[in-house]
Amino acid sequence: MSVTIACGTIHGVGLGPGAADLLSVRADRLVRGARHVAYFRKAGRPGRARRIVDGMLRADVIEIPMEYPVTTEIPLSDPRYNDCLSAFYAECTQRLLVLAQAGEDVVVLCEGDPFFYGSFMHLHGRLAGLVPVTVVPGITGMAGAWNATDIPITWGDDVLTVAMATLPEDELARRIRDTDALVVMKIGRNLPKLRRAVAAAGREDAAWLVEHAAMPGQRVTRLIEATSVTPYFSILLIHGQGRRP
Amino acid sequence: MSVTIACGTIHGVGLGPGAADLLSVRADRLVRGARHVAYFRKAGRPGRARRIVDGMLRADVIEIPMEYPVTTEIPLSDPRYNDCLSAFYAECTQRLLVLAQAGEDVVVLCEGDPFFYGSFMHLHGRLAGLVPVTVVPGITGMAGAWNATDIPITWGDDVLTVAMATLPEDELARRIRDTDALVVMKIGRNLPKLRRAVAAAGREDAAWLVEHAAMPGQRVTRLIEATSVTPYFSILLIHGQGRRP
Ligand SMILES: C[S@@+](CC[C@H](N)C(=O)[O-])C[C@H]1O[C@@H](n2cnc3c(N)ncnc32)[C@H](O)[C@@H]1O
Ligand SMILES: C[S@@+](CC[C@H](N)C(=O)[O-])C[C@H]1O[C@@H](n2cnc3c(N)ncnc32)[C@H](O)[C@@H]1O
Repeated sequence: MSVTIACGTIHGVGLGPGAADLLSVRADRLVRGARHVAYFRKAGRPGRARRIVDGMLRADVIEIPMEYPVTTEIPLSDPRYNDCLSAFYAECTQRLLVLAQAGEDVVVLCEGDPFFYGSFMHLHGRLAGLVPVTVVPGITGMAGAWNATDIPITWGDDVLTVAMATLPEDELARRIRDTDALVVMKIGRNLPKLRRAVAAAGREDAAWLVEHAAMPGQRVTRLIEATSVTPYFSILLIHGQGRRP
Repeated sequence: MSVTIACGTIHGVGLGPGAADLLSVRADRLVRGARHVAYFRKAGRPGRARRIVDGMLRADVIEIPMEYPVTTEIPLSDPRYNDCLSAFYAECTQRLLVLAQAGEDVVVLCEGDPFFYGSFMHLHGRLAGLVPVTVVPGITGMAGAWNATDIPITWGDDVLTVAMATLPEDELARRIRDTDALVVMKIGRNLPKLRRAVAAAGREDAAWLVEHAAMPGQRVTRLIEATSVTPYFSILLIHGQGRRP
């Protein structure tokens, strides 16, 4: 006798910037109802996305931490970095695939919005076509950040540029010069470089640094007053000054 | 005898891209609990933000529609356009101020995120310092749009540029050439101009048009297949192609 089991669904769920009540109603329902909850984390850490849903998971939840094999040990430019990450994502995909094929739904926790510089994208591409996958959009970290400054980010015809602090200094300076409003993410140890780029663009006075937006320990500082390294959850902002009747 | 009434709070509440279950839990609670609900609309229309919360408001809600005096009648370049809008925002501010000073809380409905090209910003600036004002961030329309295409918008070090289709054609073409990922909003009648700018940048094949993201009637089309005018809720996207191990 053979039994056909309906495939489970993998849900990439955007959690928003950090506060538990900034999950969408849809995300909140999925997270609270999930039997299987997967998330990325650094080895030995609780997991940044996981922390956002503290106290929200079912008592009988099965957690699936996916631990990054490398982060800072191998430089980004080394081809082994890519190979290593690629094998890791393939292995995570396999774990989720096995569950879905056994009929289980899995919620994958994602900081902010899953499709905006998110790790889930690497699973999404590998899972697509094999099992049902849905994505629940979320409030981005940057929206949490400009909200924390209590100043609107863009007005009228303002151009907004979003860039990563991992870009070369010259490229950053050029981008900062050539935009109305600015968001820079992935700062960490790149802060001194980013600061030089903002200064080269002549916009140091207008720049704000937001750490842990919408999380415990939220901090908003002017760039000129900031120290030299920022936590992982940090965003630099320059607000647009466009048309405002 | 004199009685002191505690001031009410004005809440600018982001509703997200359109689906009722994409409000945040915080927004959902505020909207469902509100006695006074204000929103912008064109005269004679139901109001775009208002439509998102259909069926969610209290039975005894008091609605405060704020009707735009001008939209297309006076050109943007005419100084009377600005004067007229400015007087309108001042008048709306006054209406909300009177309520807050009488001790009433007011929820102002905002499409997407209130601080991202939103009309509420014009009230926020005028109310600040006079009565308590809070802002609840929301999922942006653009996050709804890239989610609708089922393709991630940005990878690795991708630069994302957000621009309005109201910009001059040359400026649009330059921006489109000089970015990895692209979001263009406020399209409407500017679609033919935007299409020329995308073609001038050599990126017509990569561009997608999303109408009514996360709303009834959501439509995703390649730009090359699109007709010549889009509804108000339309976004053009070009997805980034950055590093993906
Ligand atoms: C891999 S990206 C993920 C972005 C996420 N998918 C989003 O939509 O915001 C990680 C970067 O997001 C930024 N970030 C995300 N949430 C944040 C928050 N609550 N506060 C400050 N920065 C945040 C930081 O710059 C961090 O380096
Ligand atoms: C005045 S701006 C308001 C943006 C809003 N505050 C946000 O965060 O998305 C209006 C523009 O947003 C875009 N937009 C907002 N929501 C949308 C949706 N659900 N689908 C498509 N476009 C949307 C359209 O380009 C529209 O012209």
